[in-house]
Amino acid sequence: MLSIAAALVMLPPPLPPSSRDVLAAEDTGWREIRQNSLLYMDVNEGTVLIELFGWFAPENTRNIFELVNAGHFDGGTIDRVQENYVVQWSGPEGAPRGNAVDRVPGESVQASEALDPIPLLPFGDVYAPAVGHWASFPVARDGENIWLTHCYGMVGVGRGEDVDGADGSELYVVIGQAPRHLDRNITLVGMVRQGMEHLTSLPRGSGALGFYGGEVEKPAISSIRHGSDVPPDEQIRLEVLDSAAPSWSAWVDARANRKRDGWFTYSHNAVDLCNLPIPVRRIDSED
Amino acid sequence: MLSIAAALVMLPPPLPPSSRDVLAAEDTGWREIRQNSLLYMDVNEGTVLIELFGWFAPENTRNIFELVNAGHFDGGTIDRVQENYVVQWSGPEGAPRGNAVDRVPGESVQASEALDPIPLLPFGDVYAPAVGHWASFPVARDGENIWLTHCYGMVGVGRGEDVDGADGSELYVVIGQAPRHLDRNITLVGMVRQGMEHLTSLPRGSGALGFYGGEVEKPAISSIRHGSDVPPDEQIRLEVLDSAAPSWSAWVDARANRKRDGWFTYSHNAVDLCNLPIPVRRIDSED
Repeated sequence: MLSIAAALVMLPPPLPPSSRDVLAAEDTGWREIRQNSLLYMDVNEGTVLIELFGWFAPENTRNIFELVNAGHFDGGTIDRVQENYVVQWSGPEGAPRGNAVDRVPGESVQASEALDPIPLLPFGDVYAPAVGHWASFPVARDGENIWLTHCYGMVGVGRGEDVDGADGSELYVVIGQAPRHLDRNITLVGMVRQGMEHLTSLPRGSGALGFYGGEVEKPAISSIRHGSDVPPDEQIRLEVLDSAAPSWSAWVDARANRKRDGWFTYSHNAVDLCNLPIPVRRIDSED
Repeated sequence: MLSIAAALVMLPPPLPPSSRDVLAAEDTGWREIRQNSLLYMDVNEGTVLIELFGWFAPENTRNIFELVNAGHFDGGTIDRVQENYVVQWSGPEGAPRGNAVDRVPGESVQASEALDPIPLLPFGDVYAPAVGHWASFPVARDGENIWLTHCYGMVGVGRGEDVDGADGSELYVVIGQAPRHLDRNITLVGMVRQGMEHLTSLPRGSGALGFYGGEVEKPAISSIRHGSDVPPDEQIRLEVLDSAAPSWSAWVDARANRKRDGWFTYSHNAVDLCNLPIPVRRIDSED
């Protein structure tokens, strides 16, 4: 007969958590998104919530807040929906610009020393020596620089030929396969945290680059508001899985090993930077 | 003074071609897509053209052709549109199945010796030891197997828990960031070569996994026809950039170095398997 100690030793080790387990666990770390980092973009289909992350692009982000505060985008339009690429919008003709400036330098990379270390993904990347997450945003870095990456849902500042000539009036969101070739070429400022489906299901534009043709009625934007200016009873409280919490690595590991979720028969033991979902959930109001 | 020979030596080397140059060049290789490899899927918004590639999944592909020949999908519906994931459809209740069988084995990988070599991408991959293209479809392989990969636009055969239990009546197409974790878990049979925008712009389903709720009218499929059965004057002739042609490597190299296209200021000298576009163009009718 086995002693109790030997029997205990023979128990199988606990199974590592599935992605569902991680999301359900009590000790998984979530971070509430601050209202003063949020933009509320109201389109016909609903509200799109964008979290801005000013550290990577402080001047561009400040300029966007100035435009939003001036009501620049209210009454604006979606101008471009390019299949498997981007949705782009702007304010109406002659919209007020408040204290926004007309030329903001490109901020597509930042010196990396200031943000070291980040939680890195251990699976490699085609575009950069290292990738991971900072404040639950996808980032990449090399020995000198760190930058936000063009994953699905990332929001950037349109520019013309001039890298330093963006005035903040044309913003875009990635709606298809991550166009990582745009990394380091154009300034990213944030990510859609809720409401992507209101943008991705819009009709594609028939013109060059997916711009809507002259005769089509462009989808309307009733307003873009700064979360801090939204009345408290209208604010939407969200929390995002926290990439700085110890539980983040369990999330990454679970998504790299999908067999734990059932249905799957093969785990790759890897997940691509832009194929790792960044979970967001609603915080229920207390009243 | 320089001699003529010395002056010639001092000329800069010719610039390598941009992606636009490759597409415009006379000697770039294109392959016409055979009508008997095509499915014409007519939805309200237009026609979706799917090229099937039977080598990777011969039994599943044969079963789909049997269903199509029996008119199985005519009068069917789009049942599921899940944001950043898949669109899935089926025939109407009780649709005829012709000579199709009810259980087809999973064919998510094939022994690789038979398809060696393929034109490989030299930039690495997060999910597989090697990736590249075969017949202008994205593929991956390891030392033993080769498989089609879940890039944007790829078409597969839905299954339940049973890997070998698909009856071909639920087909899906990838509409978001490449869900490469599905590779080797479910059978792929082809790729949308035209008309993705008719599927990606559909409203997202509100139910679990993006299925449409009971009260919503599902988008209609008037018919899915085999290209060989489409009257010649209605056939759409397409050609795809040929991954077996010598010019393919110029395309890959140009897409990995976007500075050649202008606007870009930084080239990554790399491109991800699923971020490499596979160009398709219409062949004009001769009359």
